[in-house]
Amino acid sequence: MDTTMAKADGMAVDLRGESNWTAFDAPALVGSSLRFISGDPHGERFRIRYYRDAAQQLKARVWFGPETEGPPGHAHGGAIAAVLDEVLGLTGWAAGHAVVVANLNVSFRNLLPLQTVVTVESEVVSMSGRKVLVKGRVCSGSAIYAEADCLCIAIGHPKTSDEG
Amino acid sequence: MDTTMAKADGMAVDLRGESNWTAFDAPALVGSSLRFISGDPHGERFRIRYYRDAAQQLKARVWFGPETEGPPGHAHGGAIAAVLDEVLGLTGWAAGHAVVVANLNVSFRNLLPLQTVVTVESEVVSMSGRKVLVKGRVCSGSAIYAEADCLCIAIGHPKTSDEG
Repeated sequence: MDTTMAKADGMAVDLRGESNWTAFDAPALVGSSLRFISGDPHGERFRIRYYRDAAQQLKARVWFGPETEGPPGHAHGGAIAAVLDEVLGLTGWAAGHAVVVANLNVSFRNLLPLQTVVTVESEVVSMSGRKVLVKGRVCSGSAIYAEADCLCIAIGHPKTSDEG
Repeated sequence: MDTTMAKADGMAVDLRGESNWTAFDAPALVGSSLRFISGDPHGERFRIRYYRDAAQQLKARVWFGPETEGPPGHAHGGAIAAVLDEVLGLTGWAAGHAVVVANLNVSFRNLLPLQTVVTVESEVVSMSGRKVLVKGRVCSGSAIYAEADCLCIAIGHPKTSDEG
């Protein structure tokens, strides 16, 4: 079933990525328990789809639904922080490590209107021993809504990743 | 209607505070839009009640429901971060300022089992100009699940608060 277009209040929610992005089921890396953000793809809370861009960086398109409201007509900062926790943590997983998030530092830049689709960009900044440092941001075009740094800790043995 | 005891999966969720705490409707300081955490008090996501303790510090009892799942059987880190954003921001409001959260820095200490009631403690660390620094933690007895620092910015003119 194609969930890139889903009806919300009679309006289609367009979660499609850029033309050079590839759909990627990042939450499946963790498993079906990961449902706070990803588990209700047709609901009124979050709708999210993951992609890898041409450089294999993890991206997400996210819709903040009416149940995420905080300030009138805008997403709750906690909802934005939650999405950043999920996407940045999954960026660590997508880099080949089973990780837990140890620290998440979110700076809120602008109020995010409800029922808009935004992009979460993320990248691994460094990997040192068990520490995987990831940064990312919630944005739309030139508008930045929030930025975050995330310290992930690899648990158990990281998977071997192919070079190149 | 008394929402301190609410049924979940046939089991009562006990959100009562300590005997010397006073119920305090902190979300009402912001208004009815603030519903991501507080807006579904009988649902399967978050159930929360606010109090002031004997020293007038804001406290919350929070239940993380099945919809907040991240790791199997445990709360999503993003759900914990969201609750900390709400409670620490409201601590700024309860201190007499209309605030927005500018930065939230969360350190996750232990996995939090789903469907347990925990306490969020918070306190204003400093107020300087428009900056209100708040810290807090999610805990239960001696168990600490997460700790956070939160920089709030007062918007408009802070309310005048009574001395003593």
